[in-house]
Amino acid sequence: MDLPKDNQDKLRAEIAARAINPAHESRLLSRHNLIPNTVGLAPGYLQVNLVVLPSAHASHFQDLCARNTVPCPLLGQTPIGDPTRILPEGVIKSPDFDIRTDFSSYRVFEGGVVTSPSQKDILAEWTDDSVGFLIGCSLSFEEALVENGLRVCHMEAGTVPAMYKTNIPVLPTGIFCDNATYVVSMRTYKEEEIESVRDITRPYLATHGEPVAWGWEGAKRIGIQDVHNPDFGAKQQFREGEVPVFWGCGVTPQNVVAAAGTKIKGRVMSHEPGYMLITDLTISDLPRLSGKIEIR
Amino acid sequence: MDLPKDNQDKLRAEIAARAINPAHESRLLSRHNLIPNTVGLAPGYLQVNLVVLPSAHASHFQDLCARNTVPCPLLGQTPIGDPTRILPEGVIKSPDFDIRTDFSSYRVFEGGVVTSPSQKDILAEWTDDSVGFLIGCSLSFEEALVENGLRVCHMEAGTVPAMYKTNIPVLPTGIFCDNATYVVSMRTYKEEEIESVRDITRPYLATHGEPVAWGWEGAKRIGIQDVHNPDFGAKQQFREGEVPVFWGCGVTPQNVVAAAGTKIKGRVMSHEPGYMLITDLTISDLPRLSGKIEIR
Repeated sequence: MDLPKDNQDKLRAEIAARAINPAHESRLLSRHNLIPNTVGLAPGYLQVNLVVLPSAHASHFQDLCARNTVPCPLLGQTPIGDPTRILPEGVIKSPDFDIRTDFSSYRVFEGGVVTSPSQKDILAEWTDDSVGFLIGCSLSFEEALVENGLRVCHMEAGTVPAMYKTNIPVLPTGIFCDNATYVVSMRTYKEEEIESVRDITRPYLATHGEPVAWGWEGAKRIGIQDVHNPDFGAKQQFREGEVPVFWGCGVTPQNVVAAAGTKIKGRVMSHEPGYMLITDLTISDLPRLSGKIEIR
Repeated sequence: MDLPKDNQDKLRAEIAARAINPAHESRLLSRHNLIPNTVGLAPGYLQVNLVVLPSAHASHFQDLCARNTVPCPLLGQTPIGDPTRILPEGVIKSPDFDIRTDFSSYRVFEGGVVTSPSQKDILAEWTDDSVGFLIGCSLSFEEALVENGLRVCHMEAGTVPAMYKTNIPVLPTGIFCDNATYVVSMRTYKEEEIESVRDITRPYLATHGEPVAWGWEGAKRIGIQDVHNPDFGAKQQFREGEVPVFWGCGVTPQNVVAAAGTKIKGRVMSHEPGYMLITDLTISDLPRLSGKIEIR
């Protein structure tokens, strides 16, 4: 939010006029730091998490995603060193993309530790050896919950979700074999709403799909001791009778990076948990992104 | 092994002459109960596990596989009620396939419990509502290990592998949400061989890929108390200096079926752990079966 208010309004108007769709508009707004986060923006478009790794680790990371599809549904990646393109085609359709600026907030890691949180861009950190990976995000199915009359606690609170480290093991792959565990996002529901919540989010396999655990017993089982003390994002309020419901979360690769520590040689960057990028993929792309075999 | 020895030899010769490839030959031999199991047979062809479910549960089971790709890599399935076809095309290329006879040994479940183990066929149990699912099997990569100078303990022993229940959670999906856990297969290696073993099996994402845990600490971490007392298959001998190495296993859906219990309405059948079907898929099909996104 660098510009004086008048300039901000002018820039917003220019962006709205220029954007090819609401997803593109959100990316341009993020680039100019004109939105706090992406919760509730561009309904129907799929949101993604970010990990940027040195190219030497790209193959093992792709395999990691294929083996851990619930927390790490890989939807696209950059060519080596090129921050302006995403493969496969169709994930980003606007010509002016830049992975270094179009997320709303970034973090930089050194030796597995976050050394620079809440960065507006990673222009200085990106190298000609960097590969950026885009991983599906559960913010993508929140509109579907709302459309079905189910509340999304952090949307009502105007915050990003609460996220937690768990005991669910990330299956080891290549250099990423240091007993990392899943991160999960949480939303609050009444017991009697849980089956509907599961049904509505089940088709979103490319953005974490249905919950991995629910209820107070479920929280304990996946190793969450204190639901009121999240590891990432914002603490959420429970209404009377509500219990926590947990989904796989694309912050998990940040746990994997932290566990790998100094084994990763070179620069690692990610988004700030909850501060996503919105792609040009939509819910109509979900079936082909599901990873399911073609049986017709 | 019903036929007199002379008739068996004649039938073996007829099958060898008629088979389109070694995989087809193994299926015909299994159909006539002329082989004990499929360990070491038809090198280069991919072996599979079986689950047969009522069609009402097919969609949730497909989703379960997409969410748990390491233990449950789904490679094909029958149309509803048709035991002679597998979709997608190419998994089985011979015209005379029958999923009810072509595995070397079967089990039948009632209410989540095995009531009829070691059956030669499931001709009486299959119904016009049955759907058969074929799930990748780690026997598929054993030839690659041998070719690289690494022993496979149960091949040398002439048995099926040792398999174990673990504490690794199967991610809940639809009606399959009863806290089932992974089954793993085990092979013995020296500490200094483990990185090679991981590298060799990594590309086999469609047949469980690289190990999920290794070493005595790894065994403890995934909840295996006594490596000398497997839950399925045959106990294996450790040579001096060897440690256990564990892979995801396609017997896992049998654990899922057991956990679901009476929630599954209708007949459930599977193969006998270790007694597989050999498909016409080969290691050259592995890249397109990997579940990885196309980035070229």
